Amino acid sequence: MYQLYDFLPSGNCYKIRLLLNQLGIEYERVNIDILNKESRTPEFLKINPNGRTPVLYHDGKYLAESNAILWYLASNTRFLPVDHFEQALVLQWMFFEQYSHEPNIATSRYWVSILKAENDYKEQLIAKMKAGYAALDVMEQHLASNDFFVANQYSIADIALYAYTHVADEGNFDLSGYSKIKQWFKRVENQENYIDIKKC
Amino acid sequence: MYQLYDFLPSGNCYKIRLLLNQLGIEYERVNIDILNKESRTPEFLKINPNGRTPVLYHDGKYLAESNAILWYLASNTRFLPVDHFEQALVLQWMFFEQYSHEPNIATSRYWVSILKAENDYKEQLIAKMKAGYAALDVMEQHLASNDFFVANQYSIADIALYAYTHVADEGNFDLSGYSKIKQWFKRVENQENYIDIKKC
Repeated sequence: MYQLYDFLPSGNCYKIRLLLNQLGIEYERVNIDILNKESRTPEFLKINPNGRTPVLYHDGKYLAESNAILWYLASNTRFLPVDHFEQALVLQWMFFEQYSHEPNIATSRYWVSILKAENDYKEQLIAKMKAGYAALDVMEQHLASNDFFVANQYSIADIALYAYTHVADEGNFDLSGYSKIKQWFKRVENQENYIDIKKC
Repeated sequence: MYQLYDFLPSGNCYKIRLLLNQLGIEYERVNIDILNKESRTPEFLKINPNGRTPVLYHDGKYLAESNAILWYLASNTRFLPVDHFEQALVLQWMFFEQYSHEPNIATSRYWVSILKAENDYKEQLIAKMKAGYAALDVMEQHLASNDFFVANQYSIADIALYAYTHVADEGNFDLSGYSKIKQWFKRVENQENYIDIKKC
């Protein structure tokens, strides 16, 4: 049995819920309320010493980091291309997501819509918005000539990037000028067994 | 022939130089001076629209993101474990490195020792130091009962984490209390065909 240590509003956790649903894998949710510091308790730190969700439990072992979990679950399925270079490109986009995209777009959403503390982070939000738009520009440019991020097929690279991009407005990002990204949202949402971020 | 778009002081670029050397792969260095904005020229942005080094060129194709390049080069070599779950753990530590470690430890080093602009970043450095020490604590704890990060063997997880940890003092981090990390440095530096960060 798979268990997912999961915070429902988290896009990083949503990535795993979406893929598990699309793979038809049943799992048990363990709710971790990070606002109540449940990811920093002594018990949770034994599971992930880095104190973050999601964590996947399977076969007696724990795995952290959302994109490593995606890769683990997607290997040898239609959600990861077979070609070695294309697999490396999937990782390239997933590292782009965690370095250039998530720390800006997800963090802005966390401050604005989850903590509802926009005024406390005014100055930091200016820098986050600038870097977040730069990441969105890179995505928009890529999607101008590609339906999906790698190998013209829906993969975990799309799942990783979709998770926080499609709720970027909750971090005050205006996506109205990003027509290619919005068309890609529809392609992702049309995939079989797609679920909404609010669902599990 | 492999080409590496490389900025010599960058730990992310050093990861690739170290692994290429350990694999015995010859390559051509293309020097990209990021201080001179050479990673943001129109020509370079065609190679990597995200405007960052390193980039690997091989077989007519470009690959960005240091840890994706490590994975691409290490597959089916002794630098990546064979077991599927252990491979996922390697990715877990590499995503930890890019999310929780590099943005704090490498960025501090960049401000302090490369830009030599410590005074301009005083306030930001306080937050970076705190988060950087938290990442070092996670590493120290793991190394208290493990010789290497995954499967008790030297892998690209070690290369990814070593690159900026062993020069953390250049970002004002004091490693004197991190005895397990310092013992691990020696194990990494004793690996065959190890090269110094200043070498290529």
